[in-house]
Amino acid sequence: MNIVVAQSGGPTCAINASLLGVFRHAGKYGEIDKVFGSVNGIEGLIYGNLVNMSDIITTDDDIELIRQTPSTVLGSCRYKLPDYKKEPEVYEKIVNNMKKNDISAFFYIGGNDSMDTVMKLDAYFKANGIDIKAIGIPKTIDNDLPETDHTPGFGSAAKYVATTMQEITRDSSVYSIPSVTIVEIMGRDTGWLTASSALLRVNGESAPHLIYLSEKPFSCKQFIADVKRVQKKHGAVIVALSEGVELNPDEIEENFQSGKNDIFGHKYLAGVARSLEKIVTKEIGCKVRSIELNVMQRCSSHLSSKRDITEAERIGGAAISAMLEGKTGVMMAFKRVSEHPYNVKIEAVDVNLVANRVKYFPTKWINKKGNDVTKDAINYCLPLIQGEQNFRMKNGIPQHYVLRTALPGKK
Amino acid sequence: MNIVVAQSGGPTCAINASLLGVFRHAGKYGEIDKVFGSVNGIEGLIYGNLVNMSDIITTDDDIELIRQTPSTVLGSCRYKLPDYKKEPEVYEKIVNNMKKNDISAFFYIGGNDSMDTVMKLDAYFKANGIDIKAIGIPKTIDNDLPETDHTPGFGSAAKYVATTMQEITRDSSVYSIPSVTIVEIMGRDTGWLTASSALLRVNGESAPHLIYLSEKPFSCKQFIADVKRVQKKHGAVIVALSEGVELNPDEIEENFQSGKNDIFGHKYLAGVARSLEKIVTKEIGCKVRSIELNVMQRCSSHLSSKRDITEAERIGGAAISAMLEGKTGVMMAFKRVSEHPYNVKIEAVDVNLVANRVKYFPTKWINKKGNDVTKDAINYCLPLIQGEQNFRMKNGIPQHYVLRTALPGKK
Repeated sequence: MNIVVAQSGGPTCAINASLLGVFRHAGKYGEIDKVFGSVNGIEGLIYGNLVNMSDIITTDDDIELIRQTPSTVLGSCRYKLPDYKKEPEVYEKIVNNMKKNDISAFFYIGGNDSMDTVMKLDAYFKANGIDIKAIGIPKTIDNDLPETDHTPGFGSAAKYVATTMQEITRDSSVYSIPSVTIVEIMGRDTGWLTASSALLRVNGESAPHLIYLSEKPFSCKQFIADVKRVQKKHGAVIVALSEGVELNPDEIEENFQSGKNDIFGHKYLAGVARSLEKIVTKEIGCKVRSIELNVMQRCSSHLSSKRDITEAERIGGAAISAMLEGKTGVMMAFKRVSEHPYNVKIEAVDVNLVANRVKYFPTKWINKKGNDVTKDAINYCLPLIQGEQNFRMKNGIPQHYVLRTALPGKK
Repeated sequence: MNIVVAQSGGPTCAINASLLGVFRHAGKYGEIDKVFGSVNGIEGLIYGNLVNMSDIITTDDDIELIRQTPSTVLGSCRYKLPDYKKEPEVYEKIVNNMKKNDISAFFYIGGNDSMDTVMKLDAYFKANGIDIKAIGIPKTIDNDLPETDHTPGFGSAAKYVATTMQEITRDSSVYSIPSVTIVEIMGRDTGWLTASSALLRVNGESAPHLIYLSEKPFSCKQFIADVKRVQKKHGAVIVALSEGVELNPDEIEENFQSGKNDIFGHKYLAGVARSLEKIVTKEIGCKVRSIELNVMQRCSSHLSSKRDITEAERIGGAAISAMLEGKTGVMMAFKRVSEHPYNVKIEAVDVNLVANRVKYFPTKWINKKGNDVTKDAINYCLPLIQGEQNFRMKNGIPQHYVLRTALPGKK
């Protein structure tokens, strides 16, 4: 039998490691002949853009380089499958392309939306008596998938955030004048990655002095009061802020010189950190800088967590084992079985419990004032950022895996 | 005799290595008793905030950690000395604090403005028959100091820019749709650092596909034409752009749907890349993202160039030797004596030739269309990013040197 694997959603540093996990583990079993890669996620199966993974991973060098290359070797997509009862044509195309290639299992590495694809395909297969298995492999820097202790990609992103926040802290403390530095961190709905900025306290740093997550209502007035209070003690205030933090237009209108329209025009143009920069400038008048960590959070593989990459590869392999045990309609998940020493086991969980659901950052790990996280949050994140990859450099720059020929359907 | 050293201007990854160079090299000579550090640049000498460097660098561990810690251990300032003929009081305060501590030489690690301080102090000392020497040690990620082949700090920043551009390139190429990613790189007046993004072509990348430097007049209309042309070939277009690139209000008014006020409001709020993002969205309509590399360019010491750090320490040491040879009113400078193998020697140059002057990126290294740099630019930058520091980590995060007690005058 043959199988197919695809990558979907936003890139991370670990998604290629999971691809390797699937490919290499499949190679250990005589039952599996070919591992196909679907180009640009599920789109490749719709349009017939498949590649034999053995054609693109041919040497030990390829394996080593793919492991240290961020983003997706096979490309990605943001495609959401329609309801199969209303639009069965897309499903028929997928099944045709699978049958044409003798494919009997589909592995999808991705986040919430990708698990929706796994769930829908599995339901379609079952409803139509098609013997093809569908298995999800988690991936997202947002760490917001239910039923798993954490998601591959999060550990490397957290290591980047903690390291960079520490460097920004050094950078922001050089002058003798008071200042505020507001760092905007990815996470539209959840604050996991923003919370990971607290990790640098393990090394004795007081920064970040204030942490605001997407999960909590945000008061601009309280924020200004927090900053003023912290500034008395620390001079150079460092703030970590989820991109999903929402400003309240009415509160702005009532309390600030820059009115609602002014600030919300800002927010639309340049994100929440930049809007708060403007408010701090007007209300406190000190030196202010806003910084967006942007895509560097998800693609800085030169700083990836070795544990994250290792686990990502392992969970890809575990998906193959689960399929061979007959499982389908599942997502592979980590269960933390021990804290000291840190240890996880991998289980298969019902994908219906994951798809389209969000695991929020626990309220009990946010302090009462809503401007910091607790020690529990730090303890949770700490094991996930451990270890550095032994990186291969070329001409002073990390060496990346780059395809030798274009993938079908990809320019 | 005693000496004093200070750090000034914007932080870099290498400025602490130069501090170590001064401190450690001074320790080799019996003539030099104490090395003082002036807190917050020249301000420390004005207000009497000096620290004995032996009190803050006490162990081999301290040395190793300072070398891998970005920004300035002694703090920094943006203070510009007044004309001594008009306001001699500041100079008198500085000289009093120097004499009180038996200081006979002043070492200033910094950029153009800091060299202005060295020049003015030296002129004041000479005019008043004061036997104190003033020596500049170059530092700036902008690489815009005349009379030196390059400046410490630039190599590490260039390594960060090239590495990050490569990772952004991977990240931006995942989807099957056309896109534009505009990366804004530091350099208000000069494009050295933006040009260094071309380094990743040495590893076979085609990105960045377009490079615009501060030195060349920028046409928005030409930019849109360039992007459209490149997009036909590459799909996901990667643009490197100096923060100093200037948009022409009249050109915008004449050619674009978003009028002058719209775009210039934007630029004021959020930088040139974000303004161009808006123009591309309206004119081309594809997926667009703007990214500011922000302070991470100057403080990501986890990715510093070993050659840069080594040279920064070496040039700090050379400043001590120059002082002992009787030199004053000079800046230490690199002269590239050989390309293959790369080799530099260190000379002392007249600080009057450096202060308040700017070394622009050579026009002959910019292509005719003004949207790329030549192979010469790549060859120039390549040796400067070579080698990685052997980094000490703690809890999965780089370990930084942090002062055990507060510096005088610093909170």
